[in-house]
Amino acid sequence: MAGFTSREVRLKSRPVGLPKAENFELASVELGAPGAGEILVRNRWMSVDPYMRGRMYDRASYVPPFALGEALQGGAVGEVVESGSPDFAPGDLVLSMLGWREGFVASAGQVEKLPAGSGVPVEAFLGVLGMPGLTAYSGLLEIGKPKPGDTVFVSGGAGAVGSLVAQIAKIKGCTVVATAGSDEKCAWLRSVGVDHAINYKGGNLLEAVRAAVPKGIDIYFDNVGGEHLEVALELARPFARFAECGMISQYNNEGPAAGPRNIMYLVGKSITMQGFIVTQYAGLRPQFIQDMSGWIAEGKIKWEQTVEEGIANAPAAFLKLFSGGNTGKMLVKL
Amino acid sequence: MAGFTSREVRLKSRPVGLPKAENFELASVELGAPGAGEILVRNRWMSVDPYMRGRMYDRASYVPPFALGEALQGGAVGEVVESGSPDFAPGDLVLSMLGWREGFVASAGQVEKLPAGSGVPVEAFLGVLGMPGLTAYSGLLEIGKPKPGDTVFVSGGAGAVGSLVAQIAKIKGCTVVATAGSDEKCAWLRSVGVDHAINYKGGNLLEAVRAAVPKGIDIYFDNVGGEHLEVALELARPFARFAECGMISQYNNEGPAAGPRNIMYLVGKSITMQGFIVTQYAGLRPQFIQDMSGWIAEGKIKWEQTVEEGIANAPAAFLKLFSGGNTGKMLVKL
Repeated sequence: MAGFTSREVRLKSRPVGLPKAENFELASVELGAPGAGEILVRNRWMSVDPYMRGRMYDRASYVPPFALGEALQGGAVGEVVESGSPDFAPGDLVLSMLGWREGFVASAGQVEKLPAGSGVPVEAFLGVLGMPGLTAYSGLLEIGKPKPGDTVFVSGGAGAVGSLVAQIAKIKGCTVVATAGSDEKCAWLRSVGVDHAINYKGGNLLEAVRAAVPKGIDIYFDNVGGEHLEVALELARPFARFAECGMISQYNNEGPAAGPRNIMYLVGKSITMQGFIVTQYAGLRPQFIQDMSGWIAEGKIKWEQTVEEGIANAPAAFLKLFSGGNTGKMLVKL
Repeated sequence: MAGFTSREVRLKSRPVGLPKAENFELASVELGAPGAGEILVRNRWMSVDPYMRGRMYDRASYVPPFALGEALQGGAVGEVVESGSPDFAPGDLVLSMLGWREGFVASAGQVEKLPAGSGVPVEAFLGVLGMPGLTAYSGLLEIGKPKPGDTVFVSGGAGAVGSLVAQIAKIKGCTVVATAGSDEKCAWLRSVGVDHAINYKGGNLLEAVRAAVPKGIDIYFDNVGGEHLEVALELARPFARFAECGMISQYNNEGPAAGPRNIMYLVGKSITMQGFIVTQYAGLRPQFIQDMSGWIAEGKIKWEQTVEEGIANAPAAFLKLFSGGNTGKMLVKL
């Protein structure tokens, strides 16, 4: 079997502020047959995630910046078309981090074979059973350390990570207050058991959260930063734990952002704020897969996904993350 | 033996911004003989500390606000004049938290007897062997978790807490960069082993610290907040630990302060910022006393103190904390 033509999305220029379509370009490459130890893969699903914005800046960070003129990297699920490796056969489903492209030839060690017959749609390995799932699980449990009766505040509550944080917190016996950007998202959050879902566009966020949880919060899972972080500091109880996962409200700032004006509460309330990157919790993955698979089977975890079709729409899908255009995991179906 | 007249400093009005002399008033009370189970104490030394500024605001915090018209509370060392308790005899030295007054009658359980013949001046129990010492010890060791070779950045390095943090960090095998507000203070810091002492009034703080420790910092012990905190975030290495002890640069703000504009580094660098109050580490006190006494005996810990004379000068001593008028522990000798 021969190769095929794969279209891919490359970073054409580094965005200033909110990325625009012109920062991306679509290109085609011819894929040949895999060599010894290699596989040829056709991607079925690819992921766009908020953290990718950070890699579009040219600056030192925990991962190198995306290179101009190259396909953007990120998670994808695909199917082996042809294999030069004894470990893979055509039809095998694989998870890769090679990103925004319709297909690739790579050495077998660069991908992970997904289990057959897992009982969940294959794209779940980009969401609830993938990186966003492990992010929610590890950040909430390792940093938040939830105890029954704790009050958990989660921003970006209808997103891929936040919606799982909210539901895991409920499983752990917590009261959950979550924010989202529309009444529809809030209704969905209530339908999966969130105690207080607040549309953050609805007015005074501080007073809305305070009214929902007048005794304050023990855990804040931060996906948003900015005003949400100030609200969390204001309402934190002594010894509160803040899992700092992301600050999407700040990713497209063109200049230095205003910091939380009430940061001094850290001292007086003995608050711990801990930033994290999911890769540091890779060791938890087996336990995560076991727990999450069990919760899914028991009906305790639900998820939504928002799907764009076709590689050419990957930039548009990515941009929707910053305008609230997704409920749950944002995916591109190829 | 009869009682005596004790002068005390009361909070007359709540300061707005930097406290002024008019916020305090001196009053006299007559102390009688102690009743059964009580002792009459004449204070010899009293402590003024930056945290007291927080208690002058009328707001909920980890300790109640100072009451208007009452003597301010705080640490003091005094001598028992007359005892109605079998546990105390005249001449015993006691540590109390009853504060800004020349003497008091209190039940024996409200004070702690200090060891005789400890080999250190008695006022050390308000500093190196007291609350500031335990603050430095617990915050650095429990939150900073220093390892040999780590780089420790401490702001307010010539203060009661900061100067001990710097020296304990040296004992633990770290490289230490400390800031202070004068060349004289910096010279003293170098004399006690600090690797890089920086006068923060000398120009571009970020570049000065970066030049001293180009590989960045592993631990930040924050006494100052504000610009120092931004510098620490900028220069933090991955997995850095920030012990948030105080933010003296912000205590007298009249409105909301600007927060750290680069707070987003928390996420990308997996930084942990942990606020604390020394009382949460009370359980470490026996180990602290043992370690610190040993280090003092070995000549590994030095300290300075700045002394004002007389109860009437207590407000002035307190105000000097905010203008850099102290090197090491600020004390009032009665």
